[in-house]
Amino acid sequence: MIEQNIHEVLVNANNAFNELKQYSPSHKAAFLKTIAAEIEALGDSLLEQAAEETNLPIERLKGERARTILQLHLFAEMLQEGSWVEAVIDTAIPERTPPKPNIRRMLFPIGPIVVFGASNFPFAYSTAGGDTASALAAGCSVIVKAHPAHLNTSKMVFQAIQKAIKINNMPQHIVQHVTETSFEAGKVLVQHPLTAGVGFTGSLSGGKALTQYAAERGKPIPVFAEMGSINPVIILPNAMQQNAETIAKEYAASITLGMGQFCTNPGLIITLQHKKLPVFLQELGKQIEMSVPSAMLHKGIHQAYFSKLEKVLAQKGVNLLKQSIHVVQALDALPTVATVNASVFLENPLLHEEVFGPYSLVVQCASMDELFTVWKAVKGQLTTSIMGTDEDLANYHTIVDTAIEIAGRIVFNGVPTGVEVCPAMVHGGPYPACTDSRFTAVGIFAVKRWVRPIAFQNAPDYLLPLELKDSNPLKIWRMLNGVFTKIGF
Amino acid sequence: MIEQNIHEVLVNANNAFNELKQYSPSHKAAFLKTIAAEIEALGDSLLEQAAEETNLPIERLKGERARTILQLHLFAEMLQEGSWVEAVIDTAIPERTPPKPNIRRMLFPIGPIVVFGASNFPFAYSTAGGDTASALAAGCSVIVKAHPAHLNTSKMVFQAIQKAIKINNMPQHIVQHVTETSFEAGKVLVQHPLTAGVGFTGSLSGGKALTQYAAERGKPIPVFAEMGSINPVIILPNAMQQNAETIAKEYAASITLGMGQFCTNPGLIITLQHKKLPVFLQELGKQIEMSVPSAMLHKGIHQAYFSKLEKVLAQKGVNLLKQSIHVVQALDALPTVATVNASVFLENPLLHEEVFGPYSLVVQCASMDELFTVWKAVKGQLTTSIMGTDEDLANYHTIVDTAIEIAGRIVFNGVPTGVEVCPAMVHGGPYPACTDSRFTAVGIFAVKRWVRPIAFQNAPDYLLPLELKDSNPLKIWRMLNGVFTKIGF
Repeated sequence: MIEQNIHEVLVNANNAFNELKQYSPSHKAAFLKTIAAEIEALGDSLLEQAAEETNLPIERLKGERARTILQLHLFAEMLQEGSWVEAVIDTAIPERTPPKPNIRRMLFPIGPIVVFGASNFPFAYSTAGGDTASALAAGCSVIVKAHPAHLNTSKMVFQAIQKAIKINNMPQHIVQHVTETSFEAGKVLVQHPLTAGVGFTGSLSGGKALTQYAAERGKPIPVFAEMGSINPVIILPNAMQQNAETIAKEYAASITLGMGQFCTNPGLIITLQHKKLPVFLQELGKQIEMSVPSAMLHKGIHQAYFSKLEKVLAQKGVNLLKQSIHVVQALDALPTVATVNASVFLENPLLHEEVFGPYSLVVQCASMDELFTVWKAVKGQLTTSIMGTDEDLANYHTIVDTAIEIAGRIVFNGVPTGVEVCPAMVHGGPYPACTDSRFTAVGIFAVKRWVRPIAFQNAPDYLLPLELKDSNPLKIWRMLNGVFTKIGF
Repeated sequence: MIEQNIHEVLVNANNAFNELKQYSPSHKAAFLKTIAAEIEALGDSLLEQAAEETNLPIERLKGERARTILQLHLFAEMLQEGSWVEAVIDTAIPERTPPKPNIRRMLFPIGPIVVFGASNFPFAYSTAGGDTASALAAGCSVIVKAHPAHLNTSKMVFQAIQKAIKINNMPQHIVQHVTETSFEAGKVLVQHPLTAGVGFTGSLSGGKALTQYAAERGKPIPVFAEMGSINPVIILPNAMQQNAETIAKEYAASITLGMGQFCTNPGLIITLQHKKLPVFLQELGKQIEMSVPSAMLHKGIHQAYFSKLEKVLAQKGVNLLKQSIHVVQALDALPTVATVNASVFLENPLLHEEVFGPYSLVVQCASMDELFTVWKAVKGQLTTSIMGTDEDLANYHTIVDTAIEIAGRIVFNGVPTGVEVCPAMVHGGPYPACTDSRFTAVGIFAVKRWVRPIAFQNAPDYLLPLELKDSNPLKIWRMLNGVFTKIGF
């Protein structure tokens, strides 16, 4: 039954994908903008529904809605600007032996994309989130598997999408919504022969399962799974000397932001046993004690947080520093920081794992060598942050090279939470942060996950897509015989 | 023993990869050019060695050597020009709420790459071929698993690389040569934790095995396997009417070029039961009859060709059209064309498979609908070719859309053999032509397989790589606040 339903969904998705090929970039851009407008038009009722399902505060949801709308607009602008297709033209040299043919290439969409939304981003990484927006911008059709933790929010957003489909005369099935929430449904979606790609944001175990399903299908497809991170932070000696309290305050805020339910939450702080470390720990502990708990996204995440927290705090050598002193209710998280010595951390892989929630572990190192060893011992990360003065950065010049090995984004003197949506953003990183570090899930380059290049050899100009015609009617940037230009010929 | 040796190889490769980070683009470019020069310096002895091992004629090998040298030079030029790193800069807006950080991103190499060479390209897709050149250009270290069919050629080319390493003071292990030819060695190479990517050119079964090994490793890595193709050709009615003989001659030459041992060999010709079809078949048959067989690459390929040929010709409904009438010796191939009706072709998946060698199957269709059905029935391809006059192309305007679904390169009124090495080339395509259609194995964009983006947030200018510094000292193209420019600031 599930298989039959999903088969129909995929057939519809594939037909819609084929129909969409006839739509102009500006038509697709208008569609994205209308989705944004229709989401906005849902007004407070959408925010209230999401708040009810996710326990996220209205203000946070407002911000996330704004981000979702921004993302849709950025992809619309990208389509209108047009250069994202990477048009490359090498003109013919007929007199060469053998004659050089005329070759032109650009990016085309790969087909129906299955999107698994994230529970912690009911708007920005769910039904009409970054994966959906980037796949639609690419020219793909999208099948959203609704997240069970915010099913009604997802349905409301899907209704907004459906309105936008009608308003813009888009193919009816260009976006479809699968509300079947079983694991089986996810497996069938990933393994269907017409599925061309998968976007996922969630846990390592979830991402691993999807990768495994994809591996079983024989025909490989791109699975872009963003699976979280502990986002290691290093504090260098001079920064600790000068700014111990400020850094502690800044990081306490980052650890507890949104009850730590961000994949960029700083779960690991690596420092020296510096004479200012007690000042840092005291301030960090104080801030955590004062932090006010609030409800986590759902029961599953709440249970997982407390069970992982208990496990970690029970490890030999791990010392609880502080927890929030406020009374904890129902689904509330309990902000917590702990400390451990480097040698203990290095020997216990459990301490390298993500504890999804407002928790961070401070690793104390006896030397800079040990600090580097701890830093390098963590697996692939979305981000890594470096707190250091100019003097620090001059003293440890291999820092950037090390950071590059670890993460997709390197933050200097700041916190990893708060992912700016802009072209230069990289939200991705080496496994297990992501399944393919060559791509980003945030920013316009996220579109590159869903496209493939196609070359036209000696095609008559009238058959070429607008982007590749001699005259460059769209006035996009192209590489013409090795030189970037907007000029037609 | 194999495991221990390969472990050492990977550790060395990883160290070399880390050392290489300190080398400038022009230094790496010089290295690639020196490899080219040292290959050239091997002179006739290299050609003779390759001819002995591969049975390829000296003239063909000369051409391939030239291509190999060209590839190395193109990647060197790419490094010197510098824009390939996709530098993107979004400057800060401190007065915004929250403040917009300064984010800059560019591409960095992913790590040690294992290259499996192709038996049919002992230079251009082997030891110092396109995969090696693109991975080195990316900044990766390379481990070449020597192809057993041209082990000594591979050793000679590796010696040239070693000389280039010394001349340019490159890390000693930046390229390593594994001459252990067992399948087990391949598996251990793909599954080693330090292996960051795999490049392969060869058979579908070989590519599938490597993909499977990679899936077993848990941590996903990019495996780019180019696994061949039957490169369907469609001949449209007006083209058949006007040019039946010319097309037949052109295609007979393409089918038998290099004894059909190209992954772009046209193995499938789809036509109408047109009144000029007999003329086409007669000329095609005549040319094939006259074609002079020569030795195939090695015993395994020779055996596989004859055994697959026998199997295909024994299929119900397949009619042998013509074979070369020349006497066949030792490892010679036997150029062969056969015909089949569309209905038979559609029902027999065996006929959709590649017969690697100078063989092509002409599928006769009763209508254009049937022609399209046959065309769409083939799996993913490297290329598809369209023989049609302007009138044909105007009559069948969905042709381009269909072709885009099928292949990575669409050839108009030409043959698929002869892959131009230029930026716009796409040598790749949907599975099973390739494991990841989003990339190409030929041309400078092949480098994109081995790189990942990294973002720097609020990094001080002095810590940034040259490509991302305010002043743009390398004068490369960058996207600065959404606008392409070479200007620094």
